[in-house]
Amino acid sequence: MRVELVTVGDELLLGDTVNGNAAWLGQRLAEAGATVTRSVVVGDEKDVIIEAVTTALQRADAVITTGGLGGTYDDLTRDALAEAAGVALIRDPELEARLRERVAAADQVLAEMALRMTEVPEGARILPNPAGSAPGLRVELPAGVVYALPGVPREMRAITIDSVLPELGAGPADVLTVRRTLRTAGLWETVLAARLAPVEAMEGVRLAYLPEPAEVKVRITATGPDADALLARADKLTRELLGTAVYGEGDEGLDRVVHRLLAERSATVAAAESLTGGLIGAELTAMPGSSATYVGGVVVYATRLKHELLGVPEGLLAEHGAVHPDVAAAMAEGVRDRLGASYGVAVTGVAGPEAQDGHPVGTVYVAVAGPQGQPFVTSPSLPVPRSGGEARAPIRRMTVVHALDLLRRVLLGMDAGPWTDPSGHDREESG
Amino acid sequence: MRVELVTVGDELLLGDTVNGNAAWLGQRLAEAGATVTRSVVVGDEKDVIIEAVTTALQRADAVITTGGLGGTYDDLTRDALAEAAGVALIRDPELEARLRERVAAADQVLAEMALRMTEVPEGARILPNPAGSAPGLRVELPAGVVYALPGVPREMRAITIDSVLPELGAGPADVLTVRRTLRTAGLWETVLAARLAPVEAMEGVRLAYLPEPAEVKVRITATGPDADALLARADKLTRELLGTAVYGEGDEGLDRVVHRLLAERSATVAAAESLTGGLIGAELTAMPGSSATYVGGVVVYATRLKHELLGVPEGLLAEHGAVHPDVAAAMAEGVRDRLGASYGVAVTGVAGPEAQDGHPVGTVYVAVAGPQGQPFVTSPSLPVPRSGGEARAPIRRMTVVHALDLLRRVLLGMDAGPWTDPSGHDREESG
Repeated sequence: MRVELVTVGDELLLGDTVNGNAAWLGQRLAEAGATVTRSVVVGDEKDVIIEAVTTALQRADAVITTGGLGGTYDDLTRDALAEAAGVALIRDPELEARLRERVAAADQVLAEMALRMTEVPEGARILPNPAGSAPGLRVELPAGVVYALPGVPREMRAITIDSVLPELGAGPADVLTVRRTLRTAGLWETVLAARLAPVEAMEGVRLAYLPEPAEVKVRITATGPDADALLARADKLTRELLGTAVYGEGDEGLDRVVHRLLAERSATVAAAESLTGGLIGAELTAMPGSSATYVGGVVVYATRLKHELLGVPEGLLAEHGAVHPDVAAAMAEGVRDRLGASYGVAVTGVAGPEAQDGHPVGTVYVAVAGPQGQPFVTSPSLPVPRSGGEARAPIRRMTVVHALDLLRRVLLGMDAGPWTDPSGHDREESG
Repeated sequence: MRVELVTVGDELLLGDTVNGNAAWLGQRLAEAGATVTRSVVVGDEKDVIIEAVTTALQRADAVITTGGLGGTYDDLTRDALAEAAGVALIRDPELEARLRERVAAADQVLAEMALRMTEVPEGARILPNPAGSAPGLRVELPAGVVYALPGVPREMRAITIDSVLPELGAGPADVLTVRRTLRTAGLWETVLAARLAPVEAMEGVRLAYLPEPAEVKVRITATGPDADALLARADKLTRELLGTAVYGEGDEGLDRVVHRLLAERSATVAAAESLTGGLIGAELTAMPGSSATYVGGVVVYATRLKHELLGVPEGLLAEHGAVHPDVAAAMAEGVRDRLGASYGVAVTGVAGPEAQDGHPVGTVYVAVAGPQGQPFVTSPSLPVPRSGGEARAPIRRMTVVHALDLLRRVLLGMDAGPWTDPSGHDREESG
């Protein structure tokens, strides 16, 4: 099943909104066995919407549109589809009743405009919207079927799961292609690719590398009559070649892996942060149930707080400043002890844009203190973009990944270093 | 100047990557006076790339492609443009020398594949890449000009700023349209729209509402021979109608506004977080120079830490639990005093997916303690998606926005409440 996406909205062309709906739909459809073959963004112009949808249907088995179903003057997808189908828009009494209820329940006044959300192209099927007022619409055009969904992500997702995926699920053409994504940290993309040459060489196997700050996802695609077994072999070989760099697969990010490893050990963690400002704590609390393994943390942005809140020796700070491996180690032990966790993770470094105490931008020390023994400390070398201002966000993000991955390695009793630079690809490759 | 974007990459169609490049280009081009009229994503197939680029050139004055310029087998944009131009790919000696230098400097071995990055369609102009190995390319096709840029965001941005924007800047057709975006917090989109009816009614003025969790951006577009003066009048009227809900404009987010207000008062802030897990600290440290106004914070995820680290009375926690306005107030005073800041901001609440101590998901208390006097406490009512799992991230984000906005209002001596629900649009509108 080949699907094309048509996203409607001036705000996307102007860059006020990033097209997260297209990415989400791409993932869900791929999981369901359908393939998104093209994705286009057009503005709020009825004729352009009609042209984009009809052109897409000439290539694809189905088209999904998002956006342009609201109740304001610039929401034109509904009108475009009615015109493309050559039918009229008819107000649906049930939709109108439900809208009036919702508006009354919210103590709002119903804007006359909003009633447009209750109009349906004649013959179209209503796809119920459990999260909002504008329903999705399934419209049959001469060239094929269109699923029109609202642009509000939560509503789009709910309708897709309830009404679209069941109809666009795997067709026979897709059964022979299977995919899996392995997640790695700690290796350059270039190093990964070199190591995985034997997998690249496997008949019917394709690899794609998806770099993110300090991480690389490796997507394995196996095609053929025996795709599942082929994928299993490629997966096994990939893991053998990459070793401890593989931390998980699919949607399981480092935060969930660390949470699972801690929970399996009935252990907890506390975080001491400086340059990351709280991002490590935010990452460790992103998933439901995180309170079972994360007790809390401190952000010691001002140097004096490293002593006051964590007991980092003043002499150490006076001699070396805040950016030093011994300071990271003392922070990890301090936050573990003072917050009463079994593990302490700590970071200190220079996010930029200016160097600090003579340490260049990108200097980072990451430490993990376990229940006993010396803390583990690493100093990943982070690539620094030419512009200091641009460096800040990626350096903070890479530091979070290195910290969580060091914690993972300590929990698994792995060698904690030496590190290669997982973001080297930014300097060696493009495109 | 009408520009169409062609983004190349299977990973975007599969949803492994969100198309942030298109959003960034849309913003920069709009600022430069050019208009992105369409944006398409295609996979790594040479023929499809050729078709997409040539079709786009039939509609637009220029096309910008991103992605597919790297050195691996699936990077095909370079080949596609050479074929579309009917010319050969020729290796550029300077590019090759520079690549070999970069690889040697990084102690890497040059993969033969990587040399593809040094090939240029005959007659194309090289757009230097200050941040990576694959240069941009300016290729003249029969139907018009194509700017081909790498997909790595930092490299794409650098080449765009250095080599593309200077050529695609404002043409006479665009001089008569000007835009400004005002940023608001604390009002529903529906309430904003109702209040701004007089602005909507202005001849030559268009408004667009760009909702984000707990925030709404209002983009004012003025068109006509006197566009600048018209925009100024619309801006003035909008601010009068929205009052304190307008916190800034353009790219200045709440974090920068709060940082500026604190700096103007030579004041500092410390943050005490629970459900946000560190996101408030991360937000307050996102911009360079934040150490001038942010001293640090604590994440008291475990209830006992609210007492141990912040001195919240144990009796209060025993009687009311952790989710209570008095707890939020005590947290704000505690973090202000213990971290030695002039202001303390604190949040406590239920991010879900389960209710806590009988408080439903979405119950949130936000407090700000100033240099003297009672802390300000508010309890914004947050919309909760039907699925508890989905609620967590938006509730955390909305809590961050409410906390920063309460701090802003306190710094400006504004009325801190009562709050309306800035995210009501999710429940009342779609599309």
